[in-house]
Amino acid sequence: MTARVDVGLGGREYPILIGAELLRDASVLSGAVDARDVLVVTSETVGPLYLERVRTCLSGKRVQALALPDGEAHKTLATVARIFDAMVEARFNRDACIAALGGGVVGDMAGFAAACYQRGVDFVQLPTTLLAQVDASVGGKTGVNHALGKNLIGAFHQPRLVLIDTDTLQTLPERELRAGLAEVIKHGAIADAAFFGWLEAHIDELLDCEPAALKHAVTRSCEIKADVVAEDEREAGRRAILNFGHTFGHAIEQCQGYGEWLHGEAVATGMVLAAGLSDIDEETRRRIGLLIERAGLPVFPPPVGAARMRAAMGLDKKVQDKKLRFVLLDRLGHAYTTKDYDDARLNAVLEACNE
Amino acid sequence: MTARVDVGLGGREYPILIGAELLRDASVLSGAVDARDVLVVTSETVGPLYLERVRTCLSGKRVQALALPDGEAHKTLATVARIFDAMVEARFNRDACIAALGGGVVGDMAGFAAACYQRGVDFVQLPTTLLAQVDASVGGKTGVNHALGKNLIGAFHQPRLVLIDTDTLQTLPERELRAGLAEVIKHGAIADAAFFGWLEAHIDELLDCEPAALKHAVTRSCEIKADVVAEDEREAGRRAILNFGHTFGHAIEQCQGYGEWLHGEAVATGMVLAAGLSDIDEETRRRIGLLIERAGLPVFPPPVGAARMRAAMGLDKKVQDKKLRFVLLDRLGHAYTTKDYDDARLNAVLEACNE
Repeated sequence: MTARVDVGLGGREYPILIGAELLRDASVLSGAVDARDVLVVTSETVGPLYLERVRTCLSGKRVQALALPDGEAHKTLATVARIFDAMVEARFNRDACIAALGGGVVGDMAGFAAACYQRGVDFVQLPTTLLAQVDASVGGKTGVNHALGKNLIGAFHQPRLVLIDTDTLQTLPERELRAGLAEVIKHGAIADAAFFGWLEAHIDELLDCEPAALKHAVTRSCEIKADVVAEDEREAGRRAILNFGHTFGHAIEQCQGYGEWLHGEAVATGMVLAAGLSDIDEETRRRIGLLIERAGLPVFPPPVGAARMRAAMGLDKKVQDKKLRFVLLDRLGHAYTTKDYDDARLNAVLEACNE
Repeated sequence: MTARVDVGLGGREYPILIGAELLRDASVLSGAVDARDVLVVTSETVGPLYLERVRTCLSGKRVQALALPDGEAHKTLATVARIFDAMVEARFNRDACIAALGGGVVGDMAGFAAACYQRGVDFVQLPTTLLAQVDASVGGKTGVNHALGKNLIGAFHQPRLVLIDTDTLQTLPERELRAGLAEVIKHGAIADAAFFGWLEAHIDELLDCEPAALKHAVTRSCEIKADVVAEDEREAGRRAILNFGHTFGHAIEQCQGYGEWLHGEAVATGMVLAAGLSDIDEETRRRIGLLIERAGLPVFPPPVGAARMRAAMGLDKKVQDKKLRFVLLDRLGHAYTTKDYDDARLNAVLEACNE
């Protein structure tokens, strides 16, 4: 059985289809892509694993493929220009479609290219990492990095379809699977205590890539994110709760140097710190830390020092009285944003970063 | 008195303000720009003429300026990257604004950068050529060229405000003023016979840059384009009538080599040919040709040969029976698109391209 989440954004709706072996059933993908001309954008790692399967699904169409180098360092305007080149050289027009086969980097760039090629062509996502499946599937954010900052250039461009074959997670490195679970746990923590409880009961099955468990975890994650984003497509307010754990997480990434910890690992530890700053009972804090630990994710920040963490968060000594906007929990399954946090408690939480 | 055209597109409305000396009245521009941080994107030609005036209008804000090289050849992703660099280096955020001061090339690139920087920042147009004032002010089309085709990469991004100071036309080379008049005449021909008659009565004043005449011509042109585009923002149908004269015009540009004739000149001759293909009376054809001629625009195509024109329009001998979609007139002031044109008449019209 295929699960389905309908996302209503940007004035129209698109489905996320979730199930095992979806890329083995040609009718699913070919039935959902109207375009005759399809450029499949993939990565040098994922292409060899799944491109032929996608080509088989799209037989009967004019399919071109482009494999981009892996890694955040290549998420640049120059790499997106290669997608434009491929579209132009294939003589693909406004009625063509770009399909992204891979993780978040491929999806962000292929989506941005789809937003801009001839001022917008259809876009289909075939995410093959857990992070891309539960995070990038919903929200329509596309873009690239600038030398001086991440995701500074981009567009909102909703896909026509997201097709999630959870079998692709079988080939995902275990560390990346665990990093993806951080965002799944986040969705439970900020919006659904029952789902958080389900994760506690099924975390071992998820780590074993058990198909039914993966399908449920991905489906519920997409539903939660879709609900939050639908309220706030252009990120003015409520959507910010999706950044739970991210203020601390970004600071950890910055202090450690990007690439040392995976984003999901930094977010995991960031959630532990954010739970510490939240006005919730100890039992809830314990449950959050324990689930993160059982997912094989770090619960202790690296020993970078509280002062460096404060600086990375923009809380220098020079800027006395500056208040950050944090995402905090008031109970398990409910988050809110606030500048009205307890500064003494923030200092206590950041003590964990001292050696 | 300032004229005002309200354009309702993309779910929100923006004003086009038209008048003489608008850039000398600081309250107009500063009152309409909420942003505290403004990047003025201009060209190496226009910057020295009007940048200081714009800076004066925006005094009190943090203003940065970037002068791009002139010409269609520089309308590339690489040049847009320079705008992103300037935004990042100025540490401008999502609440900043990009203002385009110059002609169509500057406006297309600045608008595209505004569409993509942090997934969209405010955009203000200060067009200084007649073509940009009557054409690019309405429609929200932004973008750049690809090595293999014009305007292949871009976005729809509506400005917050278009401020047209018709005094800037005093410094416009006369040939470019005339080329801009081609689009003004087009608006009359396709949508407003009375305006066409007004142009016949005031063409000499327009060529003399008489302020009241310029204000009316620009205002009525913007109104007509806004009406047409509002019906069809994403260019599915009716908007195509704005391409009157363009099928022939593009073919002329292609046969002549881009840059030989200005776009407006090619469109002017293209309108004469399209009028020839239209089922209208001789008197209407004569009036269209005469007004174009009085505007100092070419009414005869270059002697590139009918066969090359057919090929440039995609009507090769190989593609027997292929029908183009032409924009034709059924009377002065009313255009429609059709594939049901008289092939014998098309051949007769293209005879004019033989030596």
